[in-house]
Amino acid sequence: MERIGIEWLEIDPERIVARIPVEGNTQVYGFLHGGATATLIESVASFGTAVAVGLDKQVVGVQLSVNHLRAVRDGHITATGVPHRVGRSVAVWDVRVTDDQGNLVAAGTLTVAIREP
Amino acid sequence: MERIGIEWLEIDPERIVARIPVEGNTQVYGFLHGGATATLIESVASFGTAVAVGLDKQVVGVQLSVNHLRAVRDGHITATGVPHRVGRSVAVWDVRVTDDQGNLVAAGTLTVAIREP
Amino acid sequence: MERIGIEWLEIDPERIVARIPVEGNTQVYGFLHGGATATLIESVASFGTAVAVGLDKQVVGVQLSVNHLRAVRDGHITATGVPHRVGRSVAVWDVRVTDDQGNLVAAGTLTVAIREP
Amino acid sequence: MERIGIEWLEIDPERIVARIPVEGNTQVYGFLHGGATATLIESVASFGTAVAVGLDKQVVGVQLSVNHLRAVRDGHITATGVPHRVGRSVAVWDVRVTDDQGNLVAAGTLTVAIREP
Repeated sequence: MERIGIEWLEIDPERIVARIPVEGNTQVYGFLHGGATATLIESVASFGTAVAVGLDKQVVGVQLSVNHLRAVRDGHITATGVPHRVGRSVAVWDVRVTDDQGNLVAAGTLTVAIREP
Repeated sequence: MERIGIEWLEIDPERIVARIPVEGNTQVYGFLHGGATATLIESVASFGTAVAVGLDKQVVGVQLSVNHLRAVRDGHITATGVPHRVGRSVAVWDVRVTDDQGNLVAAGTLTVAIREP
Repeated sequence: MERIGIEWLEIDPERIVARIPVEGNTQVYGFLHGGATATLIESVASFGTAVAVGLDKQVVGVQLSVNHLRAVRDGHITATGVPHRVGRSVAVWDVRVTDDQGNLVAAGTLTVAIREP
Repeated sequence: MERIGIEWLEIDPERIVARIPVEGNTQVYGFLHGGATATLIESVASFGTAVAVGLDKQVVGVQLSVNHLRAVRDGHITATGVPHRVGRSVAVWDVRVTDDQGNLVAAGTLTVAIREP
């Protein structure tokens, strides 16, 4: 997680915002690597679920879906996650990723299993 | 890509194999980070499409789906990608990820757009 | 499409709304079948893309992701689709499905290939 | 489920096979509707999980991902589902769909929550 350089901007059970720099997270053509976007989405949604259900529960991402919508070359990308649903055993988070101009770069969904440790 | 430490083991238009170490790719609990798995899957499938269609085409991952099936604590994870279909404008790759004991750790699918540059 | 009983409520390149009755679209336990939800999402997003790009283009759903969030027993479910992006060769639609009380029942994404016929 | 005309061909905790006719499950262009494919995949994986865990457990599809790979005009499509993993609270099924000539038509994954009733 530290490798992609996540900076947490808002932490709330109903809304998590975090960003990463594009620099250092690029693929061979010099654009943002889709894996960095996926990692950011997974981190935001996992952490959001942990915040929502409490640290005494175990939180495990089980399914990640990401649509890459737009190439990004520089600046930061910012992910905003909101819960579709936080249930007793399953949570689902909707995460939108934008560039510094506010363009939608990616949209993702993480399905999270919530377990008693 | 270099950040997760990908090592390419087989490169063929019909089969791509690559691995990463778990160490250095973990989340806060010490297990493999789902984002590292997602990045490995996306890298294998993107590269496989580029190998299959030729370097004169532009290859863009548009949709990534990953199921995380099993936690991993150490060793490597190895991804094997095979194409479901490589068409003129869309390719779809199926990628299975295993641990050093051969257990299935994750399964993912990347939908790739193929474009004239 | 006729089998699930789709009723189109709003048709606009930026917003498509349609609904189906739960009755007749249930699984063995008497709840709404997830396949009916998936069909509704796919229909809304495919039709929305056709409306957005024009009937002279060919529109093909290539990837569907659906999160089922809540069981429904009766009434209707209503899907509202808005485009994440409509590009030259790929469109992505975000579709939310609610019950008659406005509860979120499912959320889905369709990735659509756009082709010259 | 009955609406799409499912015919069950093999029922085993490790392998479920079922088919539907294309006729009656088409979209406006006369090709197989993606929603019918999605419904078949969801049915096969849900039923497979129920067979694997026993009828005393409650089985709920929570996430469905489908890649549509090839248009089909007539005959049947046949879905073969095998479990990626059947755990205590989550199962994941891999489902391949072929036409009568054995061509891969679609590939899908269903994530299923398993609950005590």
